[in-house]
Formats: sequence, C-alpha cells, structure tokens
Amino acid sequence: MLSYKAPVADIKFLIEDVFNYYDHYKKHEEFEEATPDLVDAILQECAKFCENELLPLYQSGDKEGCRFDNGKVITPKGFKEAYQQYVDGGWSALSHPLEHGGQGLPPSLGLVQSEMTGTANWSWAMYPGLSHGAMNTIDAHGNDKQKELYLTRLIQGTWTGTMCLTEPQCGTDLGQVKTKAEPNGDGTYNITGTKIFISAGEHDLTDNIIHIVLARLPDAPKGTRGISLFIVPKMKTSQDGTLGDSNNVTCGSIEDKMGIKASATAVLNFDNAVGELIGPENKGLECMFTFMNTARLGTALQGVCAAELAFQNSLIYAKERLSMRSLTGKKYPEQVADPIIVHPDVRKMLMTQKVISEGGRAMIYYTAKIVDDISMAKSDKEREAADDRLGFITPILKAFLTELGSESANHGLQIFGGHGYIKEWGMEQIVRDVRISTLYEGTTGIQALDLLGRKILLTRGKSLNDFSKEVLGFCKDKSLISSNPHKRQMNRFIWPLSKSIANWQQYSVRLALKAKSDRDVVGSASVDFLMYSGYVVMGYFWAQMAQSAYEKLAEDVENRDFYRAKIKTAEFYFERMFPRTKSLAKTMMADPKSLMQLDQELMSFV
Amino acid sequence: MLSYKAPVADIKFLIEDVFNYYDHYKKHEEFEEATPDLVDAILQECAKFCENELLPLYQSGDKEGCRFDNGKVITPKGFKEAYQQYVDGGWSALSHPLEHGGQGLPPSLGLVQSEMTGTANWSWAMYPGLSHGAMNTIDAHGNDKQKELYLTRLIQGTWTGTMCLTEPQCGTDLGQVKTKAEPNGDGTYNITGTKIFISAGEHDLTDNIIHIVLARLPDAPKGTRGISLFIVPKMKTSQDGTLGDSNNVTCGSIEDKMGIKASATAVLNFDNAVGELIGPENKGLECMFTFMNTARLGTALQGVCAAELAFQNSLIYAKERLSMRSLTGKKYPEQVADPIIVHPDVRKMLMTQKVISEGGRAMIYYTAKIVDDISMAKSDKEREAADDRLGFITPILKAFLTELGSESANHGLQIFGGHGYIKEWGMEQIVRDVRISTLYEGTTGIQALDLLGRKILLTRGKSLNDFSKEVLGFCKDKSLISSNPHKRQMNRFIWPLSKSIANWQQYSVRLALKAKSDRDVVGSASVDFLMYSGYVVMGYFWAQMAQSAYEKLAEDVENRDFYRAKIKTAEFYFERMFPRTKSLAKTMMADPKSLMQLDQELMSFV
Repeated sequence: MLSYKAPVADIKFLIEDVFNYYDHYKKHEEFEEATPDLVDAILQECAKFCENELLPLYQSGDKEGCRFDNGKVITPKGFKEAYQQYVDGGWSALSHPLEHGGQGLPPSLGLVQSEMTGTANWSWAMYPGLSHGAMNTIDAHGNDKQKELYLTRLIQGTWTGTMCLTEPQCGTDLGQVKTKAEPNGDGTYNITGTKIFISAGEHDLTDNIIHIVLARLPDAPKGTRGISLFIVPKMKTSQDGTLGDSNNVTCGSIEDKMGIKASATAVLNFDNAVGELIGPENKGLECMFTFMNTARLGTALQGVCAAELAFQNSLIYAKERLSMRSLTGKKYPEQVADPIIVHPDVRKMLMTQKVISEGGRAMIYYTAKIVDDISMAKSDKEREAADDRLGFITPILKAFLTELGSESANHGLQIFGGHGYIKEWGMEQIVRDVRISTLYEGTTGIQALDLLGRKILLTRGKSLNDFSKEVLGFCKDKSLISSNPHKRQMNRFIWPLSKSIANWQQYSVRLALKAKSDRDVVGSASVDFLMYSGYVVMGYFWAQMAQSAYEKLAEDVENRDFYRAKIKTAEFYFERMFPRTKSLAKTMMADPKSLMQLDQELMSFV
Repeated sequence: MLSYKAPVADIKFLIEDVFNYYDHYKKHEEFEEATPDLVDAILQECAKFCENELLPLYQSGDKEGCRFDNGKVITPKGFKEAYQQYVDGGWSALSHPLEHGGQGLPPSLGLVQSEMTGTANWSWAMYPGLSHGAMNTIDAHGNDKQKELYLTRLIQGTWTGTMCLTEPQCGTDLGQVKTKAEPNGDGTYNITGTKIFISAGEHDLTDNIIHIVLARLPDAPKGTRGISLFIVPKMKTSQDGTLGDSNNVTCGSIEDKMGIKASATAVLNFDNAVGELIGPENKGLECMFTFMNTARLGTALQGVCAAELAFQNSLIYAKERLSMRSLTGKKYPEQVADPIIVHPDVRKMLMTQKVISEGGRAMIYYTAKIVDDISMAKSDKEREAADDRLGFITPILKAFLTELGSESANHGLQIFGGHGYIKEWGMEQIVRDVRISTLYEGTTGIQALDLLGRKILLTRGKSLNDFSKEVLGFCKDKSLISSNPHKRQMNRFIWPLSKSIANWQQYSVRLALKAKSDRDVVGSASVDFLMYSGYVVMGYFWAQMAQSAYEKLAEDVENRDFYRAKIKTAEFYFERMFPRTKSLAKTMMADPKSLMQLDQELMSFV
C-alpha cells in the first residue's frame, strides 16, 4: 500500500543549486565523467529501479521475513531477482574504482543512489550496503592479490561482503573481542569464534560471502590494541575465483527482530575457518575506523530515508482522509468532512516530516562532498583536513538524523490514526525499521561521546571552530551587513543561526572547563549537546537552501512554486523546530549530580 | 525474559503519604470497607496474580497472537485460564456496585489494580478493561432489567463487554456513523452496520460478549445529534441469562497490528442483530461522553504501565551488562568492564524512565480521587464540580502520559543496545504495545484540542484557574514565606513550579486573544500547550512527593533510603525534564502562518 517516488527535483536542487556538485567534481579530474547529463540519466534509471522493483518488495519482505533452514537463509520472494537486476544494471559498481571494474564515479553519487534504494526498501538495500563496507576495507588495506580476488567480485556484485565485529559479550566495547586467529604457517590463519548481529551474514543472493572479521592473534596485547582484521570467505576460494568446499563459517541462527525483517541478521560460527590477514597485525581497529565515518553516514541516511517514505505517504493520506471540519470553517462543504490536512496539528506533523527529510538530505549531501574530497585527496594534508571535517560532522548526522528519522516515522504513523497501527498500511513498518538506526554503527550515546569527548574536547574545539567559522562566514555573507540582494528576507534565518553558533562555541568551552574537574560532565551533557548541534547544523542548511531559493527566484526560472515552498519550509524550521535548542541548552548545562547522585541500588524498591 | 515486581512501596507511598487515600475514603461512607488492612491484602494478592500469572503470558501472547478461524477468535495459550482465575478471585467485581454483585470498593482501587494487571500484560488486561467501559455505561444509563441481565454478569465476569464506536470511514469524527437501528415494534431494534477496531470484540474467554453500539435510528438528525446507544449481545439471551442462537453479530476478521497482538481487534458485522436502546434516543454520544474521561484515564495508565515495565527491566540490564569504563575511572576493576549503569547517559535514560513512571503514577492516583468523588457525589453540584476537575486534567494525562510512556519504552530499548531490537528480550514489544496508546481513545492531537479548545477557551479558563489556584496554594504553603519546616529545601522546586503556573495562565490568555482573530491558533498551539501543561502538572506532583518525603524523613521512619531517593528523583525531574517547557513555550506561541501558509499541493514535488 505504500508508495514512493524518488524526490528528483529536491535532489537536483541540492546537487545543482545549493551544493554545486558539478563545480566540485571539476576539482577532481577523476570525476570529470560525472556530467549533468550522465547524472540525470543515473537519477532517472535509479528512480525507476527503486520505484518499480524495490518498493513493491518492501512490505512483502517484512511480512515474509528471512527464513532460516538448517544453516541456510532464504531471503523473501523477489529479493534475489531484484539483486540480480541491480548487478546487471551495474549499480554495485557505480562509485568504485575503475581499475577493479568499477565505474569510477564519485562517492557522493553513490550516496544519492543509496538514498533511493534505501528509501524504497531499506532491508533489501542492506545486502549491497554491507558489501560497500567490505569493498572499502579491502580497497584501502588489501594487497593486490586480495583486491584481484575479492574486490573485483564484490564490485561486480558476484559476491557480497559483511563486517563481523560484534560478539555476544561486546558490541561497543570491542576491546572484549575473543575470536581467535591462529597462524597456519602458510600465510593463512584459522579463525575461531562467534560473531553476532552480522547483517547480510548469510543469504541466498550470491554463492559466496566475504566476511571482514575482527579477531585476536595468539599473544596479542589485551584490549583494543590486540585486534587484527581478516578476510574470511564463506566458501573456500581459489585465486581464480573458483569456489571449493565450505570454509567452516556456519550460520547458527538469524535474529527475530522488531523490524528490518527482510535483512538477515546472522549469528556466525567460525570454526577454524581459513582467513587472510588484511592490514597490519594488531591494527584491526584502526583499519576499521577508516570507514567508520562512511558507514555511519550510511546509517544517518537511514533516518532521511525513513523520514522521506513516511512523509510521502502521510501527505497522500492527509489529503484523502476526511475527518471533522476546519476550525476556521468548512473547506470542502461538498464532502462529508474536510481532509485532515486542513487541521493545523496534522500540518505541523507533516511540515516536521518535511523539514527532517529535506533538511536531512541537505546535511547528507553536504557531507558527501567531504567524502569525495577524502577519496580524491592529493596529499596527506588534504586528506587529513577533510578527514577532520568528516569526523566532526559524522556523529552529529548519525545520531541526530536517526533520532529525527524515528520522529518522522512516528508522526507518519500518528497522522494515519488507528490505521497507522495496522500492518497493511505500512506506516508502522517504517517506525519498526528505522528504530534500529539509533542503535547500530554506534548508539546515539556513543555518537554523542565521540562528538563532545573526542572531536571537541580532545581537539580543544578545533573542528567546531572550523565549522563555526564556515557558518559565520555564510551568515556574514548573506546578512544585512552584506551586499546579498536577499539580505532583508534572509536575516530572519541568519540572526538565530549566528546567535546559536556563538552559543554552541560558548557551551563547548564551558563544558570543557567543567569537565576538567568532573569527567562525568561529558557523558552527562553529550546527548543534549549533540542534539543541539544537530539543530544548529540543520539550521545552517535550511538557511543555505532559502538563500539558493531566493537566488533562483531572482532569475527567470519556471518552477517558481518549488523555490517558494522551500522558503516557507525554512520558515517553519526556524519557527517550530529550531526553538528546541532552548531546552537542550538548559539541560546540557545541568549539574551531572542530578544524574549520578542516586546509588544504583536505590533506584528501585520493588 | 522480562520481569515485573509490582511497585508496592511506591503505590503505598502515594496512597498513604502523598494523597491520604484513607482520609479521602472516610468522606464517603460507601467506602468505609476500604481500610488499610484490606487494601494491603488486595495489593499483595493482586501483585501475586499479576507477577505469577499474567507476566509469563506477556511475551508468549505477543509471539502467538490471536488466531482468527472462520469467525472465531482463539486467544493465546493461557489467556483463558488466567481470565478464569481473575474471575474466581473476584477481581472483575472489585470496584463495582454492591447491589449488582460488586465488591463496592472505590474506583481508585480499581485503577491501582488496573495498573498492576496492565503492567504485567496490557493485551490481556484489555479484555476485562473493555468490560469496565460497558459496565459503567449500563450502570449509568441502563434500566433495571438491563442491569439485572447484563450488568450483574459483566461484574461477575461471566460475560465481557465492548464499546463499538469506530467505523471504516470514521473514528474521531463520529458524526459520520452509518450503522442503522430499525425498531421492531416490540421495544427491540435491528442493528445493521460494520464496526472496526473493536477491542475484545471477539474471543474465547467467555460464552457471550455484550456490545455497546453507536447507531442511527430511522429519520435521526444528521451528524452527532442523531446517534443512539444500543446494547447488542453476541448471543441471543433470555432475561434469565440463558443463551440462545447467534444474534447475527459476526467477526469478519481481526487486525494484524504493530503490537498488542494478544488483544483481538475485531471487525464486527451487525446484520439485523437484535439490540436494546440504552439511554435516550439520539443522545448516544452524550451517554458515551460520561465515561470518556475514565476510559481516557485508563489509557493514560497504559503510558505509566509501559514506563514502569521498561524501567524495571532496563535497570536490571544496566546493572548487568558490562561495557567500557566509567570516564571517571574504573568502577569495577575486577571485571572486564564496568556495568553500563556507570555511564551518565545511560543513567539519564534510566532516571527519565523513573520520573515518568513515578510521576505518571502520581498523576493517575491524584486523578483517581476525583473519579471517586464523582461516583459518590451527594449532589449534582458536587458531581459537576468534580466532573469539571476531571474533564480538565484528563486530556493532559491521556496525551502527556502516553507520549512519555512511549518515550520511556524507547529509552528502555535503547539501553539494551542492539539486544533491545531483538524480540527475545521483550523490550521492543513494550515499544510496539504502548504505541497504540497515543492513538486510541482520541489521539494526542484530539486531546490537545479538547484541552485548549473546550476545557480552557470555552470555559474562559475557569478549570485552568481552579487548578492553578490549587497548585499556587500548595506552593505558598510549602515555600520560604511559609511555616513549612522543609521550606528551604523545597524552594528549588516551588520556585520554577510557581513561575510555570503563572506562565501557563498567561499563555492561555494570550492564545485566547489570538484565537479570536484566527481560530487556527488553537490547533497550531494545542499539542505544544498540552505537553507544556503536562510538564507543569507532573512538576506539581514531584514537588508534592518531595514534600511528603521530607515530612517522612523528619519522622522516625525506617525506610529512609526510599524517601531520600524520592527527593533525588524530584531533583532530576526539575533539572532535566522540566526545562523542556522552555522550547514548548516558544513554539506554542509561534504564528500559525508557518504551518498553514504552504498550499497543500506544493508540499511535495515528487
């Protein structure tokens, strides 16, 4: 019953008008193929595939789920065929290197593609999604033989990949990893241990699965400094790609979960499975961290996908469902009642969904440019600078957009009233599916500690200051004191934005000072600080979108309604969402005592 | 895997120390049986039944769900036996009138009982829960024969009841009801139509089900003024209670829902089913409204139940799960990692759950006294006064506590990390189950319109002023300017509370003035206004609980830790939750234009 149309107009507004992707691509000669014509064709084709092939499998995939049968996983009906179409269409290769069979297009276009596949069917999209993680790892840390054998086939889509980190006793705290890797003396290792929560860990889409596994060498140091990374294929493989017997990686079960039921979450038992070391010994975590930001960005995207899908369907329903009359008088007197979209609170929920989806997309598309910059950096210095920018903004996007994606999905369910609770309509599925996004790839709490603890306090605020400088530069450039022809209209956005930037920096300094005498200040403030940061960052992009819309309206463009709507939506953001910063500012500065003083044994008297 | 212990210490604190139920019961001679000894015995027995019989069916009931088989509904394994135990224990009769076989105990005790059954197993509790609605309706509007035939058996629990309001085309907007009632000339009516979303509409717990049905008489006025109320039993019944053939009420299907899967949500087809009129012709909605407040209070309770169950289980997990080290240094150096309860953000989530559960319980128990007052009012004037108080506070409790119950359930899931997403642990079930509570019995948006539109603007703020006067009286009585021995400590709660009361009144006046020129102001502000109200009301009870705790600590009591914990929890509330009012104050006053100005056709360009 759910519908989805790829928001191509909005995507093009961002990549053409707001973020000037084509100018940006010109900076990197490797990306010169990414011309407007090619990109438009990709958008159209990708939209078609997602709307016609993936969306119809979204609700049926949830209903059917994955089936576990004696070590095998059977994906829902249609998943395998859709995957084959995806591979045949070359979609798995889009943003991967030419020299290994990829199409060599920029990572930012890969993210646009991921947005469409992920909105149409997040569970399905996780299979190719996990492959990207494995590909990136092998591309960065693998040797030539590994690239030839594994990377080319992952790029082709012949095989898929996974990331095997979590074990029953640890998820976040990877220092507790117990899986062992014993050298066989021939350059290979026997891997033994149990990994849980392995997305796409077992399935029937391809004949082989390439697992990237965290494990410990004998006598490795304890904790996080003694973890190495291994490539462990499901099936034994010759260097020419021929598959042999099972490599003793067995799927013990799949999880029965709240949502993303069509995505198999496997328990994998490695029992002397033969693997190859990838990257240096005991540096496994560092190697993983290289891609943690992009993996987290991919999860942030899930929030946007859920927000978009929920919004599109809520809007259709709100225009159709007739209930009660507008308080300002009948709007459709010929009908038995007015459509619920006339009611201000329904509109408030719809507009909230809209700013989350469009504002979130802008945050992702901005960050995607940084990912491009990293992948094409000409020097270590350039790469590090881009890495720092990415490292700062990623935890904000990951936590903020997944929390807001959940909020949007819940508004969607709410707009449908009692019908939202019924499976048939699909709205409750979006709520269930997106709920995982605040958990995996580091919970909201972990992102918040990363932001405030590592990215701000450890760097003495450098990344925050750099980003603030960028925003304040924009503010100065577009405000009353500038030559911006739209400054008068822009000032209502610029003023609260620049004020919040000043506060943001001030709060971080005050928290840093407090944290010197009490480290619990960090954990106590972190989530509120992160959410505050999210509203400020999203505010920056709403202001930018409004500015771009004013600029387009000043030209002789045709789709004027689109740009006018964008400005009105920015108004909604600043009037209705942005004030959430007020409460967050207050609670983030509260004394940690109120959290910490109650002895844990006195928290309950049952 | 979930556990539940009835929070008897907290319940007794409220009914003995904070709200003085026993003094209150003495005001009504009908309640003199409700002595401390009897109540304690009831609490103990009810706790035992809920912990031992109902909780074990909570997760299995979700997994199994209700089965629909050719018009019949089979409830999950154990549900029927538990229901029989409930009936045998006399629980269905607890707070119903003596003259019809009830135990004649106060409604407030019925709510305490409902809290325990509802926390242990909300889906199961809905079967007897819906019966209460039918009982109350027949008790107030039925004639003697109807009471003798139906009410006595509902009180015994031999039969159960339902409320049949919703139809496919309408839920909130009952003026659209189409179900017809044609007089047979013998005092009975033939009822024909389709009702949907009928909780407990069909099941195998009892042989008969008494449906209270909204329908239209021939030539009834259009809209809400032409709706009458009918009693329609599932089986034809003689006046002596003997059951005959089917009464042409058939269950067409049950809904496949996000949660409360063990509660059957039926589509009921009435095909010339024979019914009796209850209450006056065309006054069906007024008759229903009599009990809407208590039904909504019962739904508000669902928020508290979910918050309590989620809190209890999160707390256990947070003490057991080992991950990372405290930022202030290892707390359990002998273990591989610290339990996650050492981390401030985990504590923030736990404390948030705790204030929701305990603060919500206080809000319910306070309101339960008003329900007692109504049921035992000596005059119309007394009844109306109590009715007004109940009518004012009910929408606040219903919307605020169900929204916060969902929040607490989600914190619970979050505290479990990835495991929270797995069905086995039960945490995601609490999220799914409580999600219905913001929808049924009037959505959050409907409650908000009721509060701001009907209860405040229509009465020119009378109810708000009365309630504010009560709170300000408390504030004056406990603050620095009074003789309260604990005034110094209390002032940090009293000050923000009294300030928020002043603002609350001011905002309502400003909104009333604005609404004169633009009715959309009401809908635009309503939900934020309601949530603001909720935080203020909960603040009142946290201040009261702190005051009671100080008073007990000044005595020579034994369980001093309990009272100290209560005060620390109040501190958390005022420092970490209460500031949420800041953002709400800002957004509720925002111009409706930001919601209404965007043409609905321009909301999306896909």
